[in-house]
Amino acid sequence: MIVYILGLGAMVIFSSTGVLGAVRKDRDVLGLMILGVITAVGGGTMRDVILGVPVFWVQDMNYVIVSCVSSIALFFLLKIASIKAARYKLLLYFDAIGMAYFCIQAFDKTTGLGHGFSVALVMALLTGMGGGVMRDVLSGRPNLLITRELYASPALLGSLLYGIFNSLYPGTQWPKFASMAFIALFRIAAVYFNLQMPLWLVNRRDPD
Amino acid sequence: MIVYILGLGAMVIFSSTGVLGAVRKDRDVLGLMILGVITAVGGGTMRDVILGVPVFWVQDMNYVIVSCVSSIALFFLLKIASIKAARYKLLLYFDAIGMAYFCIQAFDKTTGLGHGFSVALVMALLTGMGGGVMRDVLSGRPNLLITRELYASPALLGSLLYGIFNSLYPGTQWPKFASMAFIALFRIAAVYFNLQMPLWLVNRRDPD
Amino acid sequence: MIVYILGLGAMVIFSSTGVLGAVRKDRDVLGLMILGVITAVGGGTMRDVILGVPVFWVQDMNYVIVSCVSSIALFFLLKIASIKAARYKLLLYFDAIGMAYFCIQAFDKTTGLGHGFSVALVMALLTGMGGGVMRDVLSGRPNLLITRELYASPALLGSLLYGIFNSLYPGTQWPKFASMAFIALFRIAAVYFNLQMPLWLVNRRDPD
Repeated sequence: MIVYILGLGAMVIFSSTGVLGAVRKDRDVLGLMILGVITAVGGGTMRDVILGVPVFWVQDMNYVIVSCVSSIALFFLLKIASIKAARYKLLLYFDAIGMAYFCIQAFDKTTGLGHGFSVALVMALLTGMGGGVMRDVLSGRPNLLITRELYASPALLGSLLYGIFNSLYPGTQWPKFASMAFIALFRIAAVYFNLQMPLWLVNRRDPD
Repeated sequence: MIVYILGLGAMVIFSSTGVLGAVRKDRDVLGLMILGVITAVGGGTMRDVILGVPVFWVQDMNYVIVSCVSSIALFFLLKIASIKAARYKLLLYFDAIGMAYFCIQAFDKTTGLGHGFSVALVMALLTGMGGGVMRDVLSGRPNLLITRELYASPALLGSLLYGIFNSLYPGTQWPKFASMAFIALFRIAAVYFNLQMPLWLVNRRDPD
Repeated sequence: MIVYILGLGAMVIFSSTGVLGAVRKDRDVLGLMILGVITAVGGGTMRDVILGVPVFWVQDMNYVIVSCVSSIALFFLLKIASIKAARYKLLLYFDAIGMAYFCIQAFDKTTGLGHGFSVALVMALLTGMGGGVMRDVLSGRPNLLITRELYASPALLGSLLYGIFNSLYPGTQWPKFASMAFIALFRIAAVYFNLQMPLWLVNRRDPD
């Protein structure tokens, strides 16, 4: 039950980043709502399609409905209230929590289907980042993969830790919550302190 | 039989919008043909993959072949004849008919698989708009979701009406044709009169 | 065994084009690695999903692991060594070999599943080009379909020849190698001599 509510909460957050990322002068509520839904369910949809299992929102449309409602609500909120940069940062913090949930839940779903550690790791990254990348491509912005934002690193490291702890301490619940906290806090710290990759992991010049 | 011919006709129209949308100086027939095919079958492909059923054109390659042939024919037509803006508008009208068909047929296919009203609504939108969005992304243009074109609204409202009428009057055929006509005429009116979303449904300024 | 090694080699090559195509100032190793993996496995993933069979890399993660390792290695190589344009051309030649392998292997996989000639042709093109198109879209460059590069033509003609020879001389192995050689050499010649489509297959002016 808590997991289900967390899942719906992640939909609210991700669809909101979709609307916030794409909102511009002259864009309408319907297009923004569709972008919000794609952002929220896009990663999980790719995961389920690639794993060959029924797509989660086709089984339970509440995920889509919650994304629609929160996208529309945010649209009107943006019309009447001016959302300052500080509030956008607040949303990024919530986004960190949503991403943490997505990664770990995708890891569990994948291993639960009998796949190995490495497949689960890919699915964690795909679910955590897929919707955001689709949002960026569809709203015409540079996507998460080619910007300097520290987004993939928390997702990858946290999912890796989860896989390790999970096999060291099978049957316990704490690795799940510890890894979610690690991902969320790492990502929040990256936003707050404007952390970036160490320079030796960054290309320092344009190619010849 | 009429439905099958309508389906192939929708392929001709959608692949043509793909070619027309992407045609530029120095682009070649093969690239444009592939874009035409993606525009025509892209939405239905995503629908079938997400629903977990065999993809329609893998079952019947006539859909792809018709799209290829009409894309190539249009390419050469564009080389010898100058297509005036007025003719492009004519194509938009046909496109409206194709989209109307795609939406309602996707709705029926989805409910026929035992899914509910809301899943069918999503699939109608996905099938009606998916190929066009892929076309826009691949040909480097702002896509249907973030332009002010009134495209999603007719698709959504008409599919909604179809679902309502269909449950009120089960076993009759007229809701199908009435809804297709509604979608097509609404979209044609939007093109002809340059209709746009009412202002209260549009974001009026850039974000802070 | 040789086929398996060729397959892994194709992963190395395609992921390298992903990294080379997207590397810019300030991009980091993780984003580039993910782009490399998407380039390498993207086309085959779409093929398997559309055919409704298990996705090849979910079955055997070596494909993803090899792509990750070679992307990371190339990233550090690019940091310490300046890759001249000439070397990039060398990579394009290898890319031609990888694409040749992808096309013919996808053709075989598709017919092996009981699908016809035309479906196999589509899957050959999708597998050979899909990853490259995803790479271009995600790294914000004009994609293979709308640039003048002669890329789709070798893939299409070679796969067509393979299908014809294969049905004329069933049970022999030479059509496979002859078609791969045809695709690779055609593509290499296109890069080396800067071949382009004959003018009558190219649109010569912008639309009205």
